[in-house]
Amino acid sequence: MYDGLIEQLVIENTSKIVLLVMDGLGGLQFENYQGTELELAKTPNLDALAQAGSCGLLTPIMTGVTTGSGPGHFGLFGYDPLNTNIGRGVLSAAGLEFDLTDKDVAARVNFATIDTSGNITDRRAGRIDTATNQRVCEILRQKVKLPKPYKFFLVTEKEHRALLVLRGPNLAGDLDDTDPQITGVPPLAVKAQNVKSKKAAALFNDFLKQARKALAAEPQANMLLLRGFAKHHPYPSLFKRYKLRCLCLANYPMYRGVSKLVGMELYPVVKSFAEQVDALKENFDKYEFFFMHVKATDATGEDGDFAAKMKAIEDVDGMIPRITALKPEVLAITGDHSTPSALRAHSWHPVPLLVWSKNARYDGSRAFNEKSCQTGGLGRLYSKEMMPLLLAHALRLKKFGA
Amino acid sequence: MYDGLIEQLVIENTSKIVLLVMDGLGGLQFENYQGTELELAKTPNLDALAQAGSCGLLTPIMTGVTTGSGPGHFGLFGYDPLNTNIGRGVLSAAGLEFDLTDKDVAARVNFATIDTSGNITDRRAGRIDTATNQRVCEILRQKVKLPKPYKFFLVTEKEHRALLVLRGPNLAGDLDDTDPQITGVPPLAVKAQNVKSKKAAALFNDFLKQARKALAAEPQANMLLLRGFAKHHPYPSLFKRYKLRCLCLANYPMYRGVSKLVGMELYPVVKSFAEQVDALKENFDKYEFFFMHVKATDATGEDGDFAAKMKAIEDVDGMIPRITALKPEVLAITGDHSTPSALRAHSWHPVPLLVWSKNARYDGSRAFNEKSCQTGGLGRLYSKEMMPLLLAHALRLKKFGA
Repeated sequence: MYDGLIEQLVIENTSKIVLLVMDGLGGLQFENYQGTELELAKTPNLDALAQAGSCGLLTPIMTGVTTGSGPGHFGLFGYDPLNTNIGRGVLSAAGLEFDLTDKDVAARVNFATIDTSGNITDRRAGRIDTATNQRVCEILRQKVKLPKPYKFFLVTEKEHRALLVLRGPNLAGDLDDTDPQITGVPPLAVKAQNVKSKKAAALFNDFLKQARKALAAEPQANMLLLRGFAKHHPYPSLFKRYKLRCLCLANYPMYRGVSKLVGMELYPVVKSFAEQVDALKENFDKYEFFFMHVKATDATGEDGDFAAKMKAIEDVDGMIPRITALKPEVLAITGDHSTPSALRAHSWHPVPLLVWSKNARYDGSRAFNEKSCQTGGLGRLYSKEMMPLLLAHALRLKKFGA
Repeated sequence: MYDGLIEQLVIENTSKIVLLVMDGLGGLQFENYQGTELELAKTPNLDALAQAGSCGLLTPIMTGVTTGSGPGHFGLFGYDPLNTNIGRGVLSAAGLEFDLTDKDVAARVNFATIDTSGNITDRRAGRIDTATNQRVCEILRQKVKLPKPYKFFLVTEKEHRALLVLRGPNLAGDLDDTDPQITGVPPLAVKAQNVKSKKAAALFNDFLKQARKALAAEPQANMLLLRGFAKHHPYPSLFKRYKLRCLCLANYPMYRGVSKLVGMELYPVVKSFAEQVDALKENFDKYEFFFMHVKATDATGEDGDFAAKMKAIEDVDGMIPRITALKPEVLAITGDHSTPSALRAHSWHPVPLLVWSKNARYDGSRAFNEKSCQTGGLGRLYSKEMMPLLLAHALRLKKFGA
């Protein structure tokens, strides 16, 4: 459906677009709550925006399908989420702000413990602390040598988790995980799923063999399990596609990772949404597109804490006047998926969307919530259709045909 | 767009899904009735479900297209109705509960009368009674011999109608009907539309030549007209696709036929909807998916009898408490198409859908009818999107991506 049409229509102007993603925004009635978190939260500022804008509902992937945060955000950024279900290795790398190249195959690492016969006794190496992880990574960087011109990068994530990147010519990432998912058996060998991935499989196996030797004296982290192998295929950036210089104001690695993959600049991690709004204000002149991410709405939903999710929504509502005071041409507020407290998990329910802009058609909405969105002027859209809509409201798309 | 994604996400659990299809449910205002049959019927039980569930509208095929019952039901079962517009021969065979194999080409038979010059005088052989049909079929089974290893099966349907199945190697079903649609001319020869169908054409023509000889003494049914040739291509079953053991509670051959083609088990024909509900209750532990079919809503619409269609809807409404008492995780109520009494025929109007489940988002619907569905929380969906939605509400789909 896209096929580059939007890209052909894009024109540049000085308008500003702010996309505020309240993670897991959509909800569900729950126990004594006869409505969703968003319906029952007191949101005078969001409701005022709804009265002055247009509402609708987003389907992240397809009807009935619950999305993870990765594809959920790719959709919001205008990328087909079905073509961007990338390996976790690449997403981890992006989240760690590791600069992947197209010569790289990335994998997620779990440090693990094996016994003297080579059988796994702990798939997470007793959840070693981050300092131990750093020390062990340093040992491997010193001792493991790959044949030239191949290189590896090993980056500590947290506790027992790390990122391993293999770089060099003729690598492909169609490789099976080495984690057998159970203890009492040895790790699996890295297995190529096709001929073009054989080179990478051999190099990863070589790495693992040397690593096991190098870590033999470690009491806990004496082996690595590799998962989520993925070759990096760079995406065309938001700048390339839409001529938008983009700033990511997100504090969690996953969302920063996806933002990086679509070419956004990443603002440093801050401590609160208020500080994200501060950063928005400070940088408002330097970019045209701002992605602001709120995690609390999802985290409270996953905790099954309806009242806390309402509160998280109300907290965002309180900051809205500071955002609108900057007078962006377009302010869009939505979620990457629903996370109803009732389900304590992501869900398939469509996600409320509000577009506030002087070019948005008044649609009679009195409030911003699931019910007003279900009859709103924007109708039902796939998440990937939102970006063209925001560009349109920002008058950044020229006419198609004469 | 689907490409097996749903199948990849399917997980098994013990939840029960009941799909109640009120055939031809959607309606239209008519003469003094200022609303549809469903709007004006008294349906306190369905309305209560709407208040506790989500409503929407289904488009069976595409905007403006009126569907037949076959594709209408394939869509509801999650199959693309445009890829399942199978030959009537195959549908007839399924409706007769004839076990087709992938070596079979099926055709619908009309017994006809020809005069001594071979011209058709009656395309329905004076609508011979079923007993005559059975007698004539037996003559053909005795006298017609096909070259080995080919076999044929001839099954009496009703009155002048029967099913002819040709079985053997290298058969294809791209064949033109032999019914010229007018009298006073001879039947057409079976003509192959392509090279791979030539073998089947020759065998059917051989069959017809022998049949004409064998039936020469019959006063009425002295010839056969063949229509709707179709090779059987088995569909992946609902169990294979969605891990659902399915029971069909339908009393008419067409619906039983489609159910059989998608791998449902068929409960014996019963005499009333009340008995279908009895069967649902008796078998509730043995299956995960139940398809209940109500014919009266369509038949009354086709008769142009608005009041009778209202009554048929009210009769179903009265049985709803017996279904909800079984506590299925998901109860979906919809139709395969609209059959407005005003049109006395199937129509293109979208079809009301109600999903009742604790995981359905309250959408403010006060009643179950076209008007509440048009602003309901489920929005506008294609019929083929319904099954993923029901699976989602039954928590039978895992998350897509991380």
